[in-house]
Amino acid sequence: MLRVRVWRGLGPLCRGGQLSPWRRTQSRTAAGSGSVSTDLSGIYPPIATPFTPEEDVDYGKLEGNLRKYAKIPFRGLVVQGSNGEYPYLTEEERVEVVKAVRRSLPTDKLLMAGSGCESTRATVQLTDKMAAAGADVVLVVTPCFYKGKMDGRALTRHFTKVADSSPVPVVLYSVPANTGLELPLDAVVQLSRHPNIVGLKDSGGDISRIGLIVHKTKAQDFQVLAGSAGFLMAAYSVGAVGGVCALANVLGRELCELESLCVSGRWEEARGLQQRLIEPNAAVTRKLGVPALKQAMEWFGFHGGACRSPLQPLTEAETLQLRSDFTSSGWL
Amino acid sequence: MLRVRVWRGLGPLCRGGQLSPWRRTQSRTAAGSGSVSTDLSGIYPPIATPFTPEEDVDYGKLEGNLRKYAKIPFRGLVVQGSNGEYPYLTEEERVEVVKAVRRSLPTDKLLMAGSGCESTRATVQLTDKMAAAGADVVLVVTPCFYKGKMDGRALTRHFTKVADSSPVPVVLYSVPANTGLELPLDAVVQLSRHPNIVGLKDSGGDISRIGLIVHKTKAQDFQVLAGSAGFLMAAYSVGAVGGVCALANVLGRELCELESLCVSGRWEEARGLQQRLIEPNAAVTRKLGVPALKQAMEWFGFHGGACRSPLQPLTEAETLQLRSDFTSSGWL
Amino acid sequence: MLRVRVWRGLGPLCRGGQLSPWRRTQSRTAAGSGSVSTDLSGIYPPIATPFTPEEDVDYGKLEGNLRKYAKIPFRGLVVQGSNGEYPYLTEEERVEVVKAVRRSLPTDKLLMAGSGCESTRATVQLTDKMAAAGADVVLVVTPCFYKGKMDGRALTRHFTKVADSSPVPVVLYSVPANTGLELPLDAVVQLSRHPNIVGLKDSGGDISRIGLIVHKTKAQDFQVLAGSAGFLMAAYSVGAVGGVCALANVLGRELCELESLCVSGRWEEARGLQQRLIEPNAAVTRKLGVPALKQAMEWFGFHGGACRSPLQPLTEAETLQLRSDFTSSGWL
Amino acid sequence: MLRVRVWRGLGPLCRGGQLSPWRRTQSRTAAGSGSVSTDLSGIYPPIATPFTPEEDVDYGKLEGNLRKYAKIPFRGLVVQGSNGEYPYLTEEERVEVVKAVRRSLPTDKLLMAGSGCESTRATVQLTDKMAAAGADVVLVVTPCFYKGKMDGRALTRHFTKVADSSPVPVVLYSVPANTGLELPLDAVVQLSRHPNIVGLKDSGGDISRIGLIVHKTKAQDFQVLAGSAGFLMAAYSVGAVGGVCALANVLGRELCELESLCVSGRWEEARGLQQRLIEPNAAVTRKLGVPALKQAMEWFGFHGGACRSPLQPLTEAETLQLRSDFTSSGWL
Repeated sequence: MLRVRVWRGLGPLCRGGQLSPWRRTQSRTAAGSGSVSTDLSGIYPPIATPFTPEEDVDYGKLEGNLRKYAKIPFRGLVVQGSNGEYPYLTEEERVEVVKAVRRSLPTDKLLMAGSGCESTRATVQLTDKMAAAGADVVLVVTPCFYKGKMDGRALTRHFTKVADSSPVPVVLYSVPANTGLELPLDAVVQLSRHPNIVGLKDSGGDISRIGLIVHKTKAQDFQVLAGSAGFLMAAYSVGAVGGVCALANVLGRELCELESLCVSGRWEEARGLQQRLIEPNAAVTRKLGVPALKQAMEWFGFHGGACRSPLQPLTEAETLQLRSDFTSSGWL
Repeated sequence: MLRVRVWRGLGPLCRGGQLSPWRRTQSRTAAGSGSVSTDLSGIYPPIATPFTPEEDVDYGKLEGNLRKYAKIPFRGLVVQGSNGEYPYLTEEERVEVVKAVRRSLPTDKLLMAGSGCESTRATVQLTDKMAAAGADVVLVVTPCFYKGKMDGRALTRHFTKVADSSPVPVVLYSVPANTGLELPLDAVVQLSRHPNIVGLKDSGGDISRIGLIVHKTKAQDFQVLAGSAGFLMAAYSVGAVGGVCALANVLGRELCELESLCVSGRWEEARGLQQRLIEPNAAVTRKLGVPALKQAMEWFGFHGGACRSPLQPLTEAETLQLRSDFTSSGWL
Repeated sequence: MLRVRVWRGLGPLCRGGQLSPWRRTQSRTAAGSGSVSTDLSGIYPPIATPFTPEEDVDYGKLEGNLRKYAKIPFRGLVVQGSNGEYPYLTEEERVEVVKAVRRSLPTDKLLMAGSGCESTRATVQLTDKMAAAGADVVLVVTPCFYKGKMDGRALTRHFTKVADSSPVPVVLYSVPANTGLELPLDAVVQLSRHPNIVGLKDSGGDISRIGLIVHKTKAQDFQVLAGSAGFLMAAYSVGAVGGVCALANVLGRELCELESLCVSGRWEEARGLQQRLIEPNAAVTRKLGVPALKQAMEWFGFHGGACRSPLQPLTEAETLQLRSDFTSSGWL
Repeated sequence: MLRVRVWRGLGPLCRGGQLSPWRRTQSRTAAGSGSVSTDLSGIYPPIATPFTPEEDVDYGKLEGNLRKYAKIPFRGLVVQGSNGEYPYLTEEERVEVVKAVRRSLPTDKLLMAGSGCESTRATVQLTDKMAAAGADVVLVVTPCFYKGKMDGRALTRHFTKVADSSPVPVVLYSVPANTGLELPLDAVVQLSRHPNIVGLKDSGGDISRIGLIVHKTKAQDFQVLAGSAGFLMAAYSVGAVGGVCALANVLGRELCELESLCVSGRWEEARGLQQRLIEPNAAVTRKLGVPALKQAMEWFGFHGGACRSPLQPLTEAETLQLRSDFTSSGWL
């Protein structure tokens, strides 16, 4: 499992003889000298955003959750991932939430902030703001509205521009269930050569694709994170280094335990644990979504609460289904 | 073809005894007294947004286009539809473009402004701003990021809240090619009963669905607009009253001619014209998208130009394909 | 509306100087001399196959239905379309049913028999048998199991081989809801030039595509039939000449009335009738399928009955839904 | 890894007090007494069917391949899987090919024969014939033509009837890339309780689903086989017991080596091998299909040759692509 990596020499320095922005600040995330890269390996909850009854961000509840997460051996937190309802926040709110998390988060934990927007220029600007707000790494989702035109060419240019100007390392983010498109494998491989692109969060769950991406990016400093707990063990088996898992908001300790079993090669034990996590994971992701994640958080002692509209609270039948998906695997 | 409609009396007045916001300003769009509704029937180009080489909005070129559109018998203009690259504009830019169009547009032309955002609260706020900027009607797209949760229940509540508070009438907007979801038929029928929801722009092109929506909303003041020129005649045949067609940015006069033939029952003539419009329409929509629309605009004397990134200019091969799709039908 | 067409001269005669098989028998379907082609225009029910309680073909009930259909001004019957459960019949049964229909059917009615199989050789053989059994025309569905490989090249070769050897004219059949693939438009246009391919049954319902096919095959003797009653009027509006409609098994007279209104240009009257047919049509096709079609046939005085397994009878809730879809439009 | 299992007692004996057909012959596949079940664990090539230039089955070439496969430590062979072009064979050919394989195959190798048809009655009959022809186990694909009606209820009844009457154990087969539908998880779990249903070949590749199926069928004698080499290691990691892999026709020894590494817990070594197999596997399955599989077989010393029409030979560009996908991973 790669934990430290060395820059491949000249890269961006050659582009005009000046340090590019990402170069200037990389020492922030590196252990010592400028020659090592950000180690992404480990488990991250893509944290939920609690709201007040008036649908404003509830910073008090957010900090309550952060205090509890601080006791779990996460590698860091993802702020403004899909589960953070980022498309429902204003740009100001998105930055403000990152600042709030930064204040609470120990410096040895990685803060990965979602900075993706539909346009390249907006993504570049928000990436700057996120870095200024304290993000160690940015997570940049594929633009998706004009999905018919978001081919490898368009996406490669988009991510290259963003990475060229980003003060912090960039993690690519492919989440077809929400965006309706998958970042093409060839684009991932090409982008993996960019010195400021350090990894991919893949939420599509096509395990052959994940294995092939690991294989084809071996020569690069490039790390793959599973985007869901349902295929976390399988992703480890083919070479992923961690996971950004909605379920970590609820069963974070258990997911860190699964990580530990996989990393130490205790596959038999890992298998049993992984199997019990699949159904609850499906419940809080593709089956019932963010409202279910927030409901489950309440059951496990975290602040969840309602989503912003148009996301609706679970119906009674959905709540029963959710509960059943946790109890049948022995979690409740 | 419905041209005037009468409010069904009490509706929103009953909700607390006060005039709701949409009530106050409805005289703006009505011909005379407060008892008639907005007539949507006719052709609208969903106008493109020209940009400078630095990707800023080019208001000079925009006005150049508007001057040319003024000579075509459109019912009005759609500003900030999908072809206006609205997801790539900031909220300020979206409002500013509407203001600019309002300044140029004769008052007998309808200004339909896209005010849809992902969250309900943002949509409510932008709807207010669009009305203040001079929109006669707002066009509200289905939120789509959490598509797995955007069922009839969620979408009905979303559109109801927006329509409850909107100072101007609301047109629903279903565009599955971009959003990955279709506004469910039952939700459309239920929403058609809201006194401040006056119609639907349907870009999905399922002509059975369009016919059924017309049928099931007959008792309401509800008008259906075809969302693409490819099925405009077919939509008229089953009861639509007009079209919002990307191709109207290029062949606006011809689409108004097609409207006229359909409305006057000259179906044989309409058929020949419709058939020749399908291939160029496909080229500037699903095949090659907004960059192709803007390229074709250049060929026909309008300002098109480049899109905002990540939308890329056409490749040479795509440009040839586009040209061929116009020449093979005799338009170039 | 094209009712007679002239062969484009040499065609197959040039292929080696001999009459090809399809040439020999074309007088069968032509009005007089060998110089006119098969007129497909009109309405066809794709007839259902009644079964005994032991799931054997019930020829008595089949003939009962045929006697009733004889009183309706259909252009002919489609035997072994999707609604005939042809994939559940053996090859012998498929041929036997065609023979039975031929015995009952007046010679001025067209018998269009489904002869499509997965392999080209099986389709060629069954086509021969269907012609020998009395089919005037064969309807050949796209092979679909290896859908990833069934591109325009493969399908063009398949249909060309079948048409080259078929003793009777061939109608192409594209039904994506069942096959998971659509016969590509370019392949349709290319195949339309084959002298023994006379038309297309398009069940996909993409009305822009249907209009474009009509437009691009204008120079050929090629006729397009709508594959469902839901978009029959719209298809007529863009140039189709008829329809093969599951619903014609139930409301055949009404569909012939709709045809008559469209053909005579009485669009306003047609519209009202078309709109009332959409919901019952959806019920017996995409919503509830063949079991619903057969249930509805029972209500309207025809023999429907159970399907072969694995198709299941409707549940009670489905039966209620089906009934409601007929009553809400005033048909029951 | 389960290798022996005990019948759950009464099951079918209770259904009327007689031995059901499957009961009578189960000793055929059991090691000793009637109390143990068929062990499916291991690797199987779903063998290709060689044809003569006239597209007849080439039994000589088939036996040539079988002689070579005999030297590879496969668990057995799958005859008439998707890669055997079974939808293009007549029923007689399907049975004849199984007989031919049985004659060549050592008795310690499992012969799993595809006996799925669209109708339940045809599947029951062919299953009988396959057992009589020497199949140890039948592989039964989901019927798929009426995909809108092939829900859990219909599929559960179909497979139950087939398993009730089958003289040999049944393996379920879900292959959405070809059928356009996935056997629902709940149906799999319910069917796993049938004493004559011993496993599932899952070609969909959703690794969360595979893990959950293993988890939910733990209490049953039910074994899951990966349906493709691309996710073989991941499937082992979550509890599958083997794989039916197209690529085993080409790189059979390597896949058996991968099996061995996974079963013995040597995951690091397995990972490297798995990664190198993904790209060639994709080439001979979803990218280029059966024609590519047969072309690659030629390169590796087996008889491949052409497919039956409408499957076409690879184009030159496709052949180059295929070759590149094998060379880039070091296999050629």
